[in-house]
Amino acid sequence: MVTQQEQSIRRTTCYLPTIPANAGTYTFDSLPLQYGSHLGPVTLAYETWGTLNAEGSNAILITHALTGNSHAHDAERPDDTKIAWWNPLIGPGRPFDTSRHFVICSNILGGCYGSTGPSSIEPRTGSRYGMRFPVITIRDMVQAQRRLIDHLGVRQLAMVAGGSIGGQQALEWAVLYPERVQRVAVVAATAALTAQAIAFSEIERQAIMADPGWQGGNYEPGQGPDAGLAIARMLAMITYQSEEAMELRFTRRPVQHRLAPSPSRFPDLGKRFDVENYLFYQGDQLVRRFDANSYLYISRAMDLYDVSEEYPSLEAALRRIRSQALFIGIRSDFLFPAVHVRWLADKVRSLGGNATYIELDSPHGHDAFLKEWEQMTVALNVGMKE
Amino acid sequence: MVTQQEQSIRRTTCYLPTIPANAGTYTFDSLPLQYGSHLGPVTLAYETWGTLNAEGSNAILITHALTGNSHAHDAERPDDTKIAWWNPLIGPGRPFDTSRHFVICSNILGGCYGSTGPSSIEPRTGSRYGMRFPVITIRDMVQAQRRLIDHLGVRQLAMVAGGSIGGQQALEWAVLYPERVQRVAVVAATAALTAQAIAFSEIERQAIMADPGWQGGNYEPGQGPDAGLAIARMLAMITYQSEEAMELRFTRRPVQHRLAPSPSRFPDLGKRFDVENYLFYQGDQLVRRFDANSYLYISRAMDLYDVSEEYPSLEAALRRIRSQALFIGIRSDFLFPAVHVRWLADKVRSLGGNATYIELDSPHGHDAFLKEWEQMTVALNVGMKE
Repeated sequence: MVTQQEQSIRRTTCYLPTIPANAGTYTFDSLPLQYGSHLGPVTLAYETWGTLNAEGSNAILITHALTGNSHAHDAERPDDTKIAWWNPLIGPGRPFDTSRHFVICSNILGGCYGSTGPSSIEPRTGSRYGMRFPVITIRDMVQAQRRLIDHLGVRQLAMVAGGSIGGQQALEWAVLYPERVQRVAVVAATAALTAQAIAFSEIERQAIMADPGWQGGNYEPGQGPDAGLAIARMLAMITYQSEEAMELRFTRRPVQHRLAPSPSRFPDLGKRFDVENYLFYQGDQLVRRFDANSYLYISRAMDLYDVSEEYPSLEAALRRIRSQALFIGIRSDFLFPAVHVRWLADKVRSLGGNATYIELDSPHGHDAFLKEWEQMTVALNVGMKE
Repeated sequence: MVTQQEQSIRRTTCYLPTIPANAGTYTFDSLPLQYGSHLGPVTLAYETWGTLNAEGSNAILITHALTGNSHAHDAERPDDTKIAWWNPLIGPGRPFDTSRHFVICSNILGGCYGSTGPSSIEPRTGSRYGMRFPVITIRDMVQAQRRLIDHLGVRQLAMVAGGSIGGQQALEWAVLYPERVQRVAVVAATAALTAQAIAFSEIERQAIMADPGWQGGNYEPGQGPDAGLAIARMLAMITYQSEEAMELRFTRRPVQHRLAPSPSRFPDLGKRFDVENYLFYQGDQLVRRFDANSYLYISRAMDLYDVSEEYPSLEAALRRIRSQALFIGIRSDFLFPAVHVRWLADKVRSLGGNATYIELDSPHGHDAFLKEWEQMTVALNVGMKE
């Protein structure tokens, strides 16, 4: 365990308002990486809720999305949907029932909310890794989490659940450690990204790396590629929503109140639409809380993920799953299309697996798994049943 | 008429391999603009094919897409689909039959292929307009084209046809000058862009304007925001295609031959996917042939367009149409969704207009109107029938 002061030093580039009492960090010496070489030492920052039973069998691992962190739940304000990203799904009587389960969420390997990432100090050089940080994969993230749950005394996971890149990790857990994962909830995630999703992702990274403030990745915190990261976030926000959702929310309405300057800081051409204003605000907010290099590495891990990698076939990979598997698709998701999530569930079932598919009927696109609390509760209760 | 030398001076930032013999320019003193102020002098570069009849009634006006130019057809190489953007649709026996019609295509107002745009010299200052160029609209583009057809002796247009921003212009022609437009073909265009389409467009512009090479728009040709413009193009290329098309073409295949460097020039993170390579190439190609400030102004005109603007209602605007109107939607278009194109056709018909809707069954997204030659031929033959 480290002190609050140490944590806040480590978290130089990302922002968590307070370090909760249930938070900790775990550091281990070295992690062999999927694409060769080692990373070490590796620290994972995590939070837990509830109590682990004597058998170490009642733990639930929650895996967060790209720019997320370990604060999936806030026990002091359990009904605030802004303060913790899966808050309404965690707590007594909720799908991830903290009166019965020991719920764990760790900041992702490569992240900037307390876990080792490109903004961490590289021991060999005494300076930040920057682009000397190795390419990491979903499997590497899962391997690091496995070290953490071992350290916490968890023998079997009652469930691994996550959406988006968190869903990729959940799927990888079920394939890589079938004997340790009793249930899995793969939300708005597929066996591998589409060409279109990789294309969006690459444009986001190019916007960051083309910003002179990026300096080849060697920027100091607070002096990074702010415009590039804001542009990346603006684009990502479109891919997290849907044409339908944006039309419902913005139509062609002109701006009411300017919330933030544009990334370029240049005046609006003719007028500003509300949708532009919203995206400027979202870009500006991310710049205040997230590290650009973490964005590059984590988004790249999403692109590179293919559950079949290093197996003879996709079928060979999926046949390893022993978990009771829930796949949740979102009708309007165009980053991880529902049809692909359903296809994956059908595939697992056709191979003899225990797979259920539930589709969220939502206009909110990919982000629906962070918004549709009632539908998510119903679905996850199905996933958690004995 | 200007000489080839004069034209090539004017075209400092854009590239046309040769100035065809059927090309010309027309310059007039001043154009009042929709949002106030005047622009002048204004030059339009154009090409024509076929012969105008004595009544001045057999002309067809073709309107090009965002980064297009007047070279819609190449009479010397009429079957080459790369050299001229609607080549297979124009010529003897084709929908735009040059043995019967006088076909005109002019470079758009604000463009950089010979027409007045932000890279033109501002008479008052003797230097390029840059961002002193006024905000222009689809209506301004149509007004400029109207001056051109008057100059050419055209009294009535047998058809106005275009796709994307060209389709917006075709629609605007039918609403603004109902008495002069006998037929219209509005291809992959709607009454107004969706919030999502505006959002994509704004990200493209921010990528350009956040590039220090942009210099507030005061760059010299060849020293502009190359990375920003390349990133803008990469994003636009996604919106011109579809998830389905990109999956058919690229899947997750790794690159075979590196065609171009990335906009940031930084090495690939782990590997390069073929889809990334393709987008790098497309970005690089556009930088070699197009002006970044023209991109800003023309894309903004697309966003600002709302056919109902300055009319009491959408119905009031559409009720003005007297043309035989063909609307062509594309099944997989997500920039101008087919459902919106169909809705517009239905609306015109419900108001008593003569409107036909045809949908291209294509996986190629928005770009299908530049690819699906057989389906386009069938559809435009319907639009051209007496």
